[in-house]
Amino acid sequence: MGVPQKALSPLLPALNSSPPHLKILDQTKLPQKVSYRQIRNHYELLRAIRGLQIRGAPLIGVASAYGVALEAVRIKKDLKRRLLSVINDLRKARPTAFNPFFILKRMEEILKLDLPEEELRLRLLEEAAKIEKEEREKCEKIGTHGAQLLKDGAKVLTICNTGFLATPGIGTALGIIYKAKEEGKRIKVFVCETRPLLQGARLTTWELQKRGVETFLITDGMVGKVMGDIDIVLTGADRIARNYDFANKVGTLTLAICASYYKKPFYCAAPTSTIDLSLQDGSEIAIEERGEEEVLTCLGRRIAPKGIKVLNPSFDITPHQLLTGLITEEGIIKLARR
Amino acid sequence: MGVPQKALSPLLPALNSSPPHLKILDQTKLPQKVSYRQIRNHYELLRAIRGLQIRGAPLIGVASAYGVALEAVRIKKDLKRRLLSVINDLRKARPTAFNPFFILKRMEEILKLDLPEEELRLRLLEEAAKIEKEEREKCEKIGTHGAQLLKDGAKVLTICNTGFLATPGIGTALGIIYKAKEEGKRIKVFVCETRPLLQGARLTTWELQKRGVETFLITDGMVGKVMGDIDIVLTGADRIARNYDFANKVGTLTLAICASYYKKPFYCAAPTSTIDLSLQDGSEIAIEERGEEEVLTCLGRRIAPKGIKVLNPSFDITPHQLLTGLITEEGIIKLARR
Repeated sequence: MGVPQKALSPLLPALNSSPPHLKILDQTKLPQKVSYRQIRNHYELLRAIRGLQIRGAPLIGVASAYGVALEAVRIKKDLKRRLLSVINDLRKARPTAFNPFFILKRMEEILKLDLPEEELRLRLLEEAAKIEKEEREKCEKIGTHGAQLLKDGAKVLTICNTGFLATPGIGTALGIIYKAKEEGKRIKVFVCETRPLLQGARLTTWELQKRGVETFLITDGMVGKVMGDIDIVLTGADRIARNYDFANKVGTLTLAICASYYKKPFYCAAPTSTIDLSLQDGSEIAIEERGEEEVLTCLGRRIAPKGIKVLNPSFDITPHQLLTGLITEEGIIKLARR
Repeated sequence: MGVPQKALSPLLPALNSSPPHLKILDQTKLPQKVSYRQIRNHYELLRAIRGLQIRGAPLIGVASAYGVALEAVRIKKDLKRRLLSVINDLRKARPTAFNPFFILKRMEEILKLDLPEEELRLRLLEEAAKIEKEEREKCEKIGTHGAQLLKDGAKVLTICNTGFLATPGIGTALGIIYKAKEEGKRIKVFVCETRPLLQGARLTTWELQKRGVETFLITDGMVGKVMGDIDIVLTGADRIARNYDFANKVGTLTLAICASYYKKPFYCAAPTSTIDLSLQDGSEIAIEERGEEEVLTCLGRRIAPKGIKVLNPSFDITPHQLLTGLITEEGIIKLARR
C-alpha cells in the first residue's frame, strides 16, 4: 500500500478544465491530429462521450463531474432541479462503465446539501476538482502496485486504451507499464489494435511511443498465436460485479480465454470505484450495443457489401474464473494461482 | 462417400483460363469492384499471387498449373529447362500453403515425360484443366460430407475466405455451408472480418450474400464473446502436418482455443492434398511473415503512428488437440469427441 514517491504526469492531458470552460482532447482524431475542443454545455459533453471523442471509464466520470460543475455556472434559476436533470442525462451517456455512475452519485450528494446556490456552485466545482485529483492519485497507486508484477524484460499484452487518454492520470493497465518503466524495467508491450474503433492502434501505440515504451501492434486475431510468448496480460475494466466478473472492451474475453489456455497471468487494473456491488455477477451487467457502421467501416471506409448484418457489442464479460487478479488503488486482489 | 448429385457452380469464377489466356478476378478490389485482369506470363502471376489478387491454397494451386501451361505455349526454345524454372519460381510465391506445391509437383511430373515438345505443351494444358476439374470435384465432396455436420438452423463461425474465391469450385468451409443450404437447411454464418486484409469482411460476406446465406459480420476480437452462441466452427487449412496440426489464416488458433473453452465442435475443411506427410507436426510448417504496412493500415488508411513496430504472421498453427475433425473429399476424419 505504498504511496508513490513521484507522480507521473500525462504528456498531454485528455481534459483541461476551469469551469465555465471544459476542453477535451478529441480522441477520434488521434493519432493524426492533436486537437482540443471546447465543451460549452452538457449536451455537447453527452455528444462527445457518445461519439467517443472522450472515452475511458474514469475520464468519462471526471468529465461528467466537470459537466455538472459547468452547468452549475451556466444555470441561473431552478438550479437544483435542473442540475439533477443534467446528472440524469449524463448517467445515460453510456450504460456499461460504472465509474461515471459512482462519480455522478458524488455530485448528486453535494447537490442534496442544504446550501445557498452560490455556495453550491462552488462546492460542485470543488468536488469535480477533488474527484479528478483522487482519480489521478488512484492511477498512481494502481501503477505502483501493478508494477510489482512486471519483471525486467516483461512482455505485456493489452487491449484498447487504458492510459492517460482514458483517465485523468497515467491510466490503469498502461499506468502500470509506465510505472514499471520508471522503475528502470525494460517492458515490451503488444497492443491489440482493438477493432472496430482501433483504440489500441490509434491511441495506445501513440501513448506508449510518447513514453518511449517498446511497442508492437498486432491485429486482434493474432492473440491466440502471440499469447504463447507473452508474460502477462493487463487490461482495464468498465464495470466489475461483486463476484469479480467484469465488463471491458469487446475482445477482453478472447484475451482471457487464450491466457487461460496458455496458463499466463491475466490481470485487470481498475479503481475500486469500478466495482458495482449491486450486481451479483457479470450476467447482470448491461452491454452497450453500438451502431453497425462501426463494424461495416474502418476509419470511415466501407469494408463489407451493403446489406450485411453485424454484431457490435462494445464490451464483453470476462468471468472471474479467468482472472488471475484485480489491481486496484488499495492493492492487488489475487483470485487465481496463475 | 456419396458423390454429389448436382454440382453447384460459382456465380463468378475466380479464374477463367484458355491458355495462352489466363484471367483472374482481382480480389483486392472486392467487394467494391468486380474486375478481371489478364495474366500474360508467370511473372505477372507471381505478382498477382504475392499481392493477393488471387488467393486461397487450391486457387493458387490451379492458377499456378495454368501459369505453367501458359508459359509452355509462350516459350519457344529450351522448353523443359525453362518450364522447370517457371515451376520453381511459382513454388516460391508463398511458402505456407501446401496445395500449390502438390499441384506444381504434378505439372513437373508431366514435364519429365519423354515427349515431343508440342505434345508436352498439350499434356501440360490438359493436366492443368484436369487439376482444376479435380479440385472443383473435391470441393463438392467436401461440401457434401461436411453438410452432414450442420443441422437445420445451425450457427456457423468462420474466418477468412474459403469459398468460390479461394478454390476453383464452391470452396471448402464455405462449400459446406452452400451444400447445407442447398439441402434446405437454414444456416446463419458469423464471419470474422479477418484483419489485416479483411478477407472475411470483403470476400466471405460478399460470397455468402450472393448465395443468399444469412450473414453476420463480427470483428476478430468478438470471437470469445460470440463463441458461446455458436454451434460449430468451420475453417479452411493451408497446410496440414501428418499429426493433423494445421496452418491457416492467423486468427484460426484464437478460434480453436475459444471453441475448446466452450466445448464447441471445431472442424477444418480441406482437400487431402493439403496434408504434407513430410512434416511430423505443426512446428515444422513455415509461416509467411508479410509486410508491416498490412497491419499499420486498413484499406490503405494509416491506423497507427509512424515508427510503431508490428507483428504480421499471415498464418498460425492450430494443434490437432484442438481440432474436432478434418473434413476432406474422402470423408470426415474424426479426431476429438466434441
